[in-house]
Amino acid sequence: MSARISNLSNRGHRGEPVIKDVFDATREELARVGFRALRIEDVAARANVNKTTIYRRWPNKSDLVQDALRSMFEDKSFAPNTGSLRGDLLMVAGAMLDFLRSANGQALVRMMMAEGTEDDLRRIVDTLRSEKEGVGELIIERAKARGEVRGDVKTELLLSTLVGGLHHRIFAICVATNEIDLEEHVDLLLYGAVPRATK
Amino acid sequence: MSARISNLSNRGHRGEPVIKDVFDATREELARVGFRALRIEDVAARANVNKTTIYRRWPNKSDLVQDALRSMFEDKSFAPNTGSLRGDLLMVAGAMLDFLRSANGQALVRMMMAEGTEDDLRRIVDTLRSEKEGVGELIIERAKARGEVRGDVKTELLLSTLVGGLHHRIFAICVATNEIDLEEHVDLLLYGAVPRATK
Repeated sequence: MSARISNLSNRGHRGEPVIKDVFDATREELARVGFRALRIEDVAARANVNKTTIYRRWPNKSDLVQDALRSMFEDKSFAPNTGSLRGDLLMVAGAMLDFLRSANGQALVRMMMAEGTEDDLRRIVDTLRSEKEGVGELIIERAKARGEVRGDVKTELLLSTLVGGLHHRIFAICVATNEIDLEEHVDLLLYGAVPRATK
Repeated sequence: MSARISNLSNRGHRGEPVIKDVFDATREELARVGFRALRIEDVAARANVNKTTIYRRWPNKSDLVQDALRSMFEDKSFAPNTGSLRGDLLMVAGAMLDFLRSANGQALVRMMMAEGTEDDLRRIVDTLRSEKEGVGELIIERAKARGEVRGDVKTELLLSTLVGGLHHRIFAICVATNEIDLEEHVDLLLYGAVPRATK
């Protein structure tokens, strides 16, 4: 396997653009036909590379899809640290909303919702989520240390409710992404719907 | 159209079970193949009726699907009125969780997420949602009148966050439905994650 990788990187500066093209083509095909129907041949044609170029590096579809999805988040894997939970959650939610503003992003999320019972896709999503969940956990743990969150609030519940609420409004209610007010979402989770004396 | 309906009801007591069988079969086929691929022939075969029996009453697929989906909620269209927002939301969320506990229910929600961009299905879901949204609105309006909800909290946002959070944990995180603690969900939305002096 390492021989194969060095084989590809031996092409020098041609290596990087090829990988980027293959990842872009993989995500476009995923958005178009979904995981089950994805064919390496179609990815190769779209990326304008020989299919053996893809098979050499990614012997199976799952490896390719996992790497292609992971590459979307590579520059977004740091946890924001604005000093307040509200600021951090607004940054995380903002990055998510940017992603959902793209037609490709919406199609990818829809595909994952639809085919989420597919075992191979399930494993990929679980792997990527476990790589990324440290970001959310770090934000919430810092907030708990600052006394900004009640100790009995589950991190997973809080993050799921933020993400799920956004997804539901965009995908089920079909609220346009530019009509989503992120402060409203974050403040509902932080302060609740019931009136409080101090906010 | 009314002639067709009376034609069907002229069969007397045979009418009702046939309709129930057709609705059940429609939902099972929807869960199995989705809206786009649904064929009246397959519904007829599953319901063990002649396909003309279906075409006579529902000239097109959309009418049939809309009536079959609506029939699921017919006995659940009343708004609970427990006297507190917390009690009402727990009842609404409980009915939803019961639905999601069935394999059929999960498959139907997944299908709607996946094919939500399909125009005909979109119209059906919008129609059914507008028929049902009065329930949620009534609950929240009553709560606002009792001073239980801040006036600036949008009803749609509150309900979407409750539903979306549940959906996300069940469909994306794959939390088992029997591990979902509804009080946790409702209390996060009512009281928020930030510590408050009085709860």
